[in-house]
Amino acid sequence: MARNLITEVPGIRVGNAQDERLASGVTVAVFDETTTVSCAVLGGAPGTRETDLLQPEMIATGADAVVLSGGSAFGLDAATGVQSWLRANGRGFRFAGIRVPLVSQAIAFDLLNGGDKDWGVHPPYRELGWAAAEAAAESFALGSMGGGYGATTLDLKGGLGSASAVTPSGFRVGALAVVNAIASAVIGGGPHFWAGALEEGDEFGGLGLPARVTADMRRLAWKGQGREPPPGTTIALVATDARLDKAAARRLALAAGGGLHKALRFANAATDGDTIFAAATGRRDRPVDPPAQIEIGAAAGDCLARAVARGVYAATALPFPGALPAWRDRFGQNRSAR
Amino acid sequence: MARNLITEVPGIRVGNAQDERLASGVTVAVFDETTTVSCAVLGGAPGTRETDLLQPEMIATGADAVVLSGGSAFGLDAATGVQSWLRANGRGFRFAGIRVPLVSQAIAFDLLNGGDKDWGVHPPYRELGWAAAEAAAESFALGSMGGGYGATTLDLKGGLGSASAVTPSGFRVGALAVVNAIASAVIGGGPHFWAGALEEGDEFGGLGLPARVTADMRRLAWKGQGREPPPGTTIALVATDARLDKAAARRLALAAGGGLHKALRFANAATDGDTIFAAATGRRDRPVDPPAQIEIGAAAGDCLARAVARGVYAATALPFPGALPAWRDRFGQNRSAR
Repeated sequence: MARNLITEVPGIRVGNAQDERLASGVTVAVFDETTTVSCAVLGGAPGTRETDLLQPEMIATGADAVVLSGGSAFGLDAATGVQSWLRANGRGFRFAGIRVPLVSQAIAFDLLNGGDKDWGVHPPYRELGWAAAEAAAESFALGSMGGGYGATTLDLKGGLGSASAVTPSGFRVGALAVVNAIASAVIGGGPHFWAGALEEGDEFGGLGLPARVTADMRRLAWKGQGREPPPGTTIALVATDARLDKAAARRLALAAGGGLHKALRFANAATDGDTIFAAATGRRDRPVDPPAQIEIGAAAGDCLARAVARGVYAATALPFPGALPAWRDRFGQNRSAR
Repeated sequence: MARNLITEVPGIRVGNAQDERLASGVTVAVFDETTTVSCAVLGGAPGTRETDLLQPEMIATGADAVVLSGGSAFGLDAATGVQSWLRANGRGFRFAGIRVPLVSQAIAFDLLNGGDKDWGVHPPYRELGWAAAEAAAESFALGSMGGGYGATTLDLKGGLGSASAVTPSGFRVGALAVVNAIASAVIGGGPHFWAGALEEGDEFGGLGLPARVTADMRRLAWKGQGREPPPGTTIALVATDARLDKAAARRLALAAGGGLHKALRFANAATDGDTIFAAATGRRDRPVDPPAQIEIGAAAGDCLARAVARGVYAATALPFPGALPAWRDRFGQNRSAR
């Protein structure tokens, strides 16, 4: 728990790259070897790449990397940059004597955040993908970084979050999330996070929960309410060191998806693209019995909820007129000094 | 039926681009407007992009283009080139006041066909995708073209095929296929196509069927049999001018998938990536009752089977030592002149 990051699960490194003028970026989780990965596409407006091969009935073991990026559908060339980096480094799923790096990706919509999206002929995410892979390490920064650089929620700046845990059976679990949610991570626009009941220490401010949530505080609200809503999306990776097959990894993705509902009011909407990847590195080589599997799923959901809150908590506002404030701007201890 | 191409369905144009040294290429179907599209991923080793959004429960109407390319997973940046071309031409799914071109793609594995795959840092498919979109027209060439340039089957050169039909209810139907199948399109290595019973005129040679198919002629055989098989794949688009919703389009993709089994022995294997897209342009604005829907599905399956045979029939061999012969080399009227 030293880092409280998904990289507490051995075999995973995470890298960020972002472009301030573009107000967007790429986060990549690079696996030390081709790793069992599946996914669950839970929102109604997804943007994805190489997700079919992650389904349990498909033959590939999994993937070499998972990309979480901004850029909406334009961001999907980030996986090409990551793939090129992996190829240059001799990595990839091996078949028929050659190596093909398999890179799965989901994107978030950050095209209306004030950044300069006039990038010329081809989008810049391929180069950001390469840079993020090049930067992958066990330690990485949260908040307005990588795929979370340009992310927003309904009422506060979004960002990149992560968290980790150890289950009672001793399996390590972690989550990584780009929080660009269609709705809010805080209760009624106040300082308390919906995920408050799950907070470890003061990892997202230590404020706990409000004594009472009024009807007004829980009123449904979302981006663009009452007019055409710009898509929001939370895209995430959860991981464990347990040895799971792809079907169990898909089960893990579905179980972890519950974390979005603990951390956001609300998620998995018709116009969001919420997508959860789940990786099992298998580094802890002991059997996963049904109770252990249940614990891993529940822990992954909790980690994802905490990662969502931490992403918003760590974010900093974009430097544009009218940009959404960050949680720290509005509720942090230094807010009066700003 | 003048062209006997998928472009007999109004609202669809098709373009090819290929690189002879690479021995690979890209085919794109560009829709005149964002069009209802769904898909069915039927093989066990798919490589895909933007297929999740095509599922019936997702909110996007469909796509602006469908890409069928070579390059295995490296070819997935072809969609970026097509997307950039669409953006430069003001196209795209409109939301929140901006346009995002939605481009779905599947790839075929042609990395071991003798071409030079040492392309440097990033794969060349993005530029091929742009060129294919730029070339899109109602008329296009079949055989060793576009995504079918580097394609092979078990025993003969593969290629790009297409065919069209009109249903008894008057709906137009067409198919477009990159035939890189794991197995064979011809019976027992001879000149007859498995799809022979469905042939219109002499669209793939007019030889019909052999009087008797012996056990030896139907013996199972596939690429790499007995050793690690290189993935084969047939990727295809079927289309109709009927007005279908996405759920009906997915039903169409599934029905059309039967065409692969009429044209190949065999398909949908654990190591192929067979994927069928289905588009409904809705240009013929009359109700589609259940019988009409059944006819459209059956016609699409037949068109796909014919497109597979036509792709092999029209192909020319790659100019490399040891390259698989083309059907015309082995069985065509001019074979003695070669």
